[in-house]
Amino acid sequence: MHILVIGAAGMVGRKLTEKLVANGALAGRTIERLDLVDVVAPKAPDGAAFPVNVSAADLSEPATASLLVADKPDVIFHLAAIVSGEAEADFDKGWRINMDGTRYLLEAIRHANYVPRLVFTSSIAVFGAPFPEYIPDDFHLTPLTSYGAQKACCELMLADYTRKGFVDGVGLRFPTIVVRPGAPNKAASGFFSGIIREPLSGIEAILPVGDDVRHWLASPRAAVQFLIHAAEIDGAAVGPRRNITLPGVEVTVGQMIEGLKAVAGDAVASRIRREPDATVLKIVSGWPEAFEAKRAAELGFKADASFEAIVRAHIEDELGGSFVA
Amino acid sequence: MHILVIGAAGMVGRKLTEKLVANGALAGRTIERLDLVDVVAPKAPDGAAFPVNVSAADLSEPATASLLVADKPDVIFHLAAIVSGEAEADFDKGWRINMDGTRYLLEAIRHANYVPRLVFTSSIAVFGAPFPEYIPDDFHLTPLTSYGAQKACCELMLADYTRKGFVDGVGLRFPTIVVRPGAPNKAASGFFSGIIREPLSGIEAILPVGDDVRHWLASPRAAVQFLIHAAEIDGAAVGPRRNITLPGVEVTVGQMIEGLKAVAGDAVASRIRREPDATVLKIVSGWPEAFEAKRAAELGFKADASFEAIVRAHIEDELGGSFVA
Repeated sequence: MHILVIGAAGMVGRKLTEKLVANGALAGRTIERLDLVDVVAPKAPDGAAFPVNVSAADLSEPATASLLVADKPDVIFHLAAIVSGEAEADFDKGWRINMDGTRYLLEAIRHANYVPRLVFTSSIAVFGAPFPEYIPDDFHLTPLTSYGAQKACCELMLADYTRKGFVDGVGLRFPTIVVRPGAPNKAASGFFSGIIREPLSGIEAILPVGDDVRHWLASPRAAVQFLIHAAEIDGAAVGPRRNITLPGVEVTVGQMIEGLKAVAGDAVASRIRREPDATVLKIVSGWPEAFEAKRAAELGFKADASFEAIVRAHIEDELGGSFVA
Repeated sequence: MHILVIGAAGMVGRKLTEKLVANGALAGRTIERLDLVDVVAPKAPDGAAFPVNVSAADLSEPATASLLVADKPDVIFHLAAIVSGEAEADFDKGWRINMDGTRYLLEAIRHANYVPRLVFTSSIAVFGAPFPEYIPDDFHLTPLTSYGAQKACCELMLADYTRKGFVDGVGLRFPTIVVRPGAPNKAASGFFSGIIREPLSGIEAILPVGDDVRHWLASPRAAVQFLIHAAEIDGAAVGPRRNITLPGVEVTVGQMIEGLKAVAGDAVASRIRREPDATVLKIVSGWPEAFEAKRAAELGFKADASFEAIVRAHIEDELGGSFVA
């Protein structure tokens, strides 16, 4: 089994790499080679029982993709993208990296004359308000950001290339990933992680929205498991609808805070300071809140057990099992 | 009012041109210039009260679009595309013309620094089976042809460029246009026109599917009216969902034959010969049958009054008011 991870230096890419190294196998086959690529060379993981090649490459350069697939990796994880805020600020860059980059990859695979499993990371940003209370699997694609439009175009290409037999693609619409490790960032969604991560480290966190804001979350641990499951799943079972809305944990901000209290106590939760920000609230109010995600469940994708489980996973995976009480 | 029609040599383009010449105005403004473009130069219409420029140009050449919009037409009708069968047979050509061509046009408009109304012809081929009995306006985009995938990508780009204020786009998902004038063609949908057109001209027509096949139709006359209405409609009323499923006439093949009998008599309808073709039936069974089309109705788009009205429109517009009884 030869695996290629494009976008391997990002948070999910690094955690996926760790998991592949730990498992040593994918889809029942021993891993014999792992190629890790990103715009900056990813760090090689420790302790791999197989060769790991790291390299820096820009998928938005037309010649890159054919080099990446020249040795015909069996499974390709395509995680590379610029994020929503940057795609909105730099229109050209967003379309070039998020759409053209993916198209170059699909073309390179097609012209390499083999049919790998391609796991593509899409996003619930392909959907745009107004929404029903629970968004069904057959809800239309009306993104309200360039990022969402780019991901939706890639979904359509992935499905068409798969239908034509040029690739065996599976697209995953990820929930918002919480708790993201690392420093706070300026993303509008940053507070979903910040109000858990910072208090557990003894630091005050700002909550810019009301307690009633409802959203759809998955832990980094669940995200990695979604990717691996998508690599292993029977393509025939997926059928022609190649893009799947993933299961998540439906919570309000108020329920998140209650979950944090339940796991870590009131003193930790008291480090959340409410400071409403109309700009953030406006952005967040256009985001999807909750999904049916029936197909994903039928196909064996599993959400985190609860929001408390997401908090505990963060404490175990990022904080060595303890927190600042 | 300066108007540009791209794809003006096709059947709908010609009829749109005739109507613009006859009306002399669009959106309450006198037409002062009309540019007609296609891969082969369209025929200039007779009797125009304003200058008409005809030219041959290929929108899939990257430099074409900026030349077309250099004089900043107020309204652009983008009808150019290769059809479903050709896009399926020539994968590269389909993506190049149907998607890249539209993207070049959007980019050219953006860089011309003005905001014209762009009316884009999409298709109900953006939808793919399985379907509910009546497909709602918020049904997802899961095309089962490359043509449908290309149109769906263009819809997403049109909406995003409009959202960003680069263009004022309206996308129209056309029903199958019936009765198409001219010679029979090999398109899988050809029989929908053929079983009306040929018998009215005294010629036998082959019906390759059963009487229970249900579909969503509009006359060429309605198609032209959809385009004009889309050019005149208030963009604010359309809102962020720029792509509209158009109203149509829902009929089964059996009802089409009854309609033909009602308008033209049993002798005409007896010129339809049933010759089932499993290949055609398989293709047609993946097509959408009927829509709710609520938004289009709210926005003032009007379907033909009935299937009989479609037959009568064909007799009036194409046969000079009479047929071979």
